[in-house]
Amino acid sequence: MPRMKLYNYYRSSAAYRVRIALNLKGLSWDHVGVHLLKREHRNTEYLALNPAGLVPTLIDDDGTTLTQSLAIIEYLEETKAGTPPLLPKDPAARAYVRSLAMALACDVHPLNNVRVLNYITGELGATDAQKSAWIAHWIEIGLDAFEKVLLQSGLSGQFCYGDLPTMADCVLVPQVFSARRFNVDVSKFPRVAAIESLCNTLPAFIGAHPKNQSDFAP
Amino acid sequence: MPRMKLYNYYRSSAAYRVRIALNLKGLSWDHVGVHLLKREHRNTEYLALNPAGLVPTLIDDDGTTLTQSLAIIEYLEETKAGTPPLLPKDPAARAYVRSLAMALACDVHPLNNVRVLNYITGELGATDAQKSAWIAHWIEIGLDAFEKVLLQSGLSGQFCYGDLPTMADCVLVPQVFSARRFNVDVSKFPRVAAIESLCNTLPAFIGAHPKNQSDFAP
Repeated sequence: MPRMKLYNYYRSSAAYRVRIALNLKGLSWDHVGVHLLKREHRNTEYLALNPAGLVPTLIDDDGTTLTQSLAIIEYLEETKAGTPPLLPKDPAARAYVRSLAMALACDVHPLNNVRVLNYITGELGATDAQKSAWIAHWIEIGLDAFEKVLLQSGLSGQFCYGDLPTMADCVLVPQVFSARRFNVDVSKFPRVAAIESLCNTLPAFIGAHPKNQSDFAP
Repeated sequence: MPRMKLYNYYRSSAAYRVRIALNLKGLSWDHVGVHLLKREHRNTEYLALNPAGLVPTLIDDDGTTLTQSLAIIEYLEETKAGTPPLLPKDPAARAYVRSLAMALACDVHPLNNVRVLNYITGELGATDAQKSAWIAHWIEIGLDAFEKVLLQSGLSGQFCYGDLPTMADCVLVPQVFSARRFNVDVSKFPRVAAIESLCNTLPAFIGAHPKNQSDFAP
């Protein structure tokens, strides 16, 4: 049977989330590079798989084509029986974990996508300094809210929810990677920083790190 | 038993999605207004429910507090047995419907949130014309990709997926409402326009429309 293929860009947060999820579930997959800066996501071939021209796209071993990182993770959860779960069982807890994932995937990450940054520097004439401030602003607001939710809910343990990694950690770790890249002081969010630090000692997270991808460019 | 309470703002797309889902499922709920322009989402009382200060928040009849519109819809799907489903049964189809919902909820809507618009007109000095162009730009890109996915997949019927409404329609209709508000020519996306037009003849969608909310202001 063919292996799963993840159309991928080493630095894409959305692809990074799926890499973590695949690894946590112990699934084998092949990395297919889609170089965003070379605009390979706008190639006819890639647009046929993913008409929105965004990464990632996962091709399951039966040929099913899947897009949108969180929809892909839910699919893996529903179809890969016997692999470690990335959502708890209780519906309220599941909703809580999903809300953590979406708080970053919906409210933070889309604002810092390459096409958005190109628009603010192009059409809106933002300077490089303004672009950096924009990126850091949305990450700080997002991580600040995330930290408050973790503390207020009392539901975090070693990970975002309890003592096992979930979909929320799959989203948090790439967001913190991006935060550091844009010089956000992550130590202002100690619960977030502790969780990220533990995650990054685990093989599933290490294997998914941008620097460990075949298309990594320093 | 107390009824569900939806903390709500008539014009919020995210709240509008949940109103549609609640209505499609035939659930009874009370509208609690959170006036965003009066900054009621930053009140201490509201922040205790939703530390990110965003709408909607749903309080279930057993007191469970839920945030993030798509996580709320998934929760309703998992807990309200016997109500019409908003996701199909097959995992690949579920992933497809979720990916449609997320294509708008993650890649379009967050860019046009009030706080983002305030940033581009404030910190980045965008004019009102530039703000309107920004809003229309992201909606057009998003609806264009959405239309292409619907056509390419061949999976739409009277609704986004087949002939029954799903989570994807719950997200599409508020996005098209927003498109019209900002003078996007929705007729460029005929499949989207036809689906929205049908949805807006159904009581569940009519009841969820901004103009039919108790806090509506013309």
